[in-house]
Amino acid sequence: MEKKLSKWGFNNGDLKEKSLFSIRSVLEMLMENLKEDDDNRSKIHLGRGDPSAIPCFRTSSAAEDAIYSAVKSAKFNGYAPAVGLYSTRRSIAEYLSHDLPHQLSPDDIFLAPGANQAIEVVMSVLARPGANILLSRPGYPFYEARAACSNLEVRHFDLLPEKGWEVDLESVEALVDDNTIAIVIINPGNPCGNVFTSEHLQEIAETAKKLGILVIADEVYSHLCFESSIAFAFQIAECLQDYLEYSANPATIVQGAVPHLLEKTSKDFFSNINNILKEAVEAFYTKVQEIPCLTCPYKPEGAMCVMIKLNLSFLEGINDDMEFCTKLAHEESVIILPGKTSSFFVAQEGICTHS
Amino acid sequence: MEKKLSKWGFNNGDLKEKSLFSIRSVLEMLMENLKEDDDNRSKIHLGRGDPSAIPCFRTSSAAEDAIYSAVKSAKFNGYAPAVGLYSTRRSIAEYLSHDLPHQLSPDDIFLAPGANQAIEVVMSVLARPGANILLSRPGYPFYEARAACSNLEVRHFDLLPEKGWEVDLESVEALVDDNTIAIVIINPGNPCGNVFTSEHLQEIAETAKKLGILVIADEVYSHLCFESSIAFAFQIAECLQDYLEYSANPATIVQGAVPHLLEKTSKDFFSNINNILKEAVEAFYTKVQEIPCLTCPYKPEGAMCVMIKLNLSFLEGINDDMEFCTKLAHEESVIILPGKTSSFFVAQEGICTHS
Repeated sequence: MEKKLSKWGFNNGDLKEKSLFSIRSVLEMLMENLKEDDDNRSKIHLGRGDPSAIPCFRTSSAAEDAIYSAVKSAKFNGYAPAVGLYSTRRSIAEYLSHDLPHQLSPDDIFLAPGANQAIEVVMSVLARPGANILLSRPGYPFYEARAACSNLEVRHFDLLPEKGWEVDLESVEALVDDNTIAIVIINPGNPCGNVFTSEHLQEIAETAKKLGILVIADEVYSHLCFESSIAFAFQIAECLQDYLEYSANPATIVQGAVPHLLEKTSKDFFSNINNILKEAVEAFYTKVQEIPCLTCPYKPEGAMCVMIKLNLSFLEGINDDMEFCTKLAHEESVIILPGKTSSFFVAQEGICTHS
Repeated sequence: MEKKLSKWGFNNGDLKEKSLFSIRSVLEMLMENLKEDDDNRSKIHLGRGDPSAIPCFRTSSAAEDAIYSAVKSAKFNGYAPAVGLYSTRRSIAEYLSHDLPHQLSPDDIFLAPGANQAIEVVMSVLARPGANILLSRPGYPFYEARAACSNLEVRHFDLLPEKGWEVDLESVEALVDDNTIAIVIINPGNPCGNVFTSEHLQEIAETAKKLGILVIADEVYSHLCFESSIAFAFQIAECLQDYLEYSANPATIVQGAVPHLLEKTSKDFFSNINNILKEAVEAFYTKVQEIPCLTCPYKPEGAMCVMIKLNLSFLEGINDDMEFCTKLAHEESVIILPGKTSSFFVAQEGICTHS
């Protein structure tokens, strides 16, 4: 029996060998590096990526009411269609169309339980033998992990810190071949906090069109945008619908809550959160400039992260970002995340409460 | 660009060729076969598998209150660990341990957004080149679909209608080889509505142990059991935890609601539903005995389906269960599902409202 079990297929070790890991697993490792007596010591948690523990980021009362109404209506206890409830998709299409030059239809909208699941669906749909996909470096590591699960080859293009983390379009052109399916564009950026200009988005779109590849526009942080606005819409294909028949769908009560939530959530809710984040970024950016071994090449304009460059020559006995993060957790009880580019780290939204 | 899109990997056609289809897609096809003037005609929907539209199956007020409390607490808006919230897993472990001779630990419990997702996770974890898995015929077709997505070979063993849909253990032994990973046992049965005796479960367990294969016990209908009780527990492996890092997790508010829901839902809620289903089964079973071309080999003791055998020699111009279902929808506005064994069909819980 023991022997048989070792035959099992999914092996996280494969992902680890390829330096693919989940943010959660890195975070758990860093938390284990806190000193044992840290219960009596103030932890500074800048690696959360999850604002729910911080009261000023509590979700809107409209969202809470929307869930409550959906539950009490008893209309959303059953199965929804694989692509999602029509009423939910219609309200999302109308909502997204506000900012677009064209009108989205409910048929353009597919629902997933969360952003990670949307990535899983897209990667599964794109996968085929020999195909490759373009991902940014730095980027969001879940893409790499799901690409590996689907046997999609990953090719990395650079984001350029000296140009506000814009896409290095020349490197994109050099990477593409006949087997390149798509390019993933995360905007506002995760983990760099950058927001692309309309002109740069236009350049990306033109490059993708010229090369004949899809653009997967990850705009999960589109509401967390302090400085400017965004202009892509998801490119979605029919075979998503087929795949969704065989994958997890969002809880129906959550789907049922969406129209109410979109209609009733005030703009103040988002502007309030963006103001808090913007103040935190300003304070953090100013403080970082006073620390010789740290450089912030770009002050974030959106999302919940800031990317910091380490000057390793100032840091005795530290060889890369992972070591820096591990020692900072152990010695100072400060949690940040490695940027995975060996001399960057990432501090997430916790900044607002501690800086 | 058009040409490139055709390179995409996921192709529902592959599944259709292998006669793999989702229940939802069959149902949609049958609904399209209703006559156009059917708005003025009473539809009899026996193919739903989803009781939420029927008021007598409304979920418990305890479940509604549990979701409301979880939302209002503002404690469950963030990310949960990949395996699920500890408090939720603890409450489920305690709840399941009531009926077991041993105590489950929270570490034995992994959460999925729903049963289909649990199947997806298990199939993904089991998959490896050359492996095969044993599924019952009749069975729940989602297993076949997810096995195909993971390139797991499926081998079918029979459930024996003349023996109350018990597992044909001789056929199981004949199917197993060194590459057989697991056997899936659905109890109460879907779609046959059977409930295995303790003795038969013991036989299955001993056979699996002897053959060195895992038992995947699908007990999603364990609360819908009119006649007797069930005795398996899920067999779960550590690598589930790794896979869950990369797959969809249940909405945190739903996880947060679980302890309240398990504690406060009265036994009356389940016994009331079981009484309704049992009455419906009795009525349906009696009526079916009066119809010459139909035989019900086994009166269901659980779950929400009844499996009926067609006597095709009495049915002119009908060659299989799919044709029977299609014509019944078109001519009589009665929706039932094909049993996929060419001379069975399945009527689902709708029976209670129409019989």
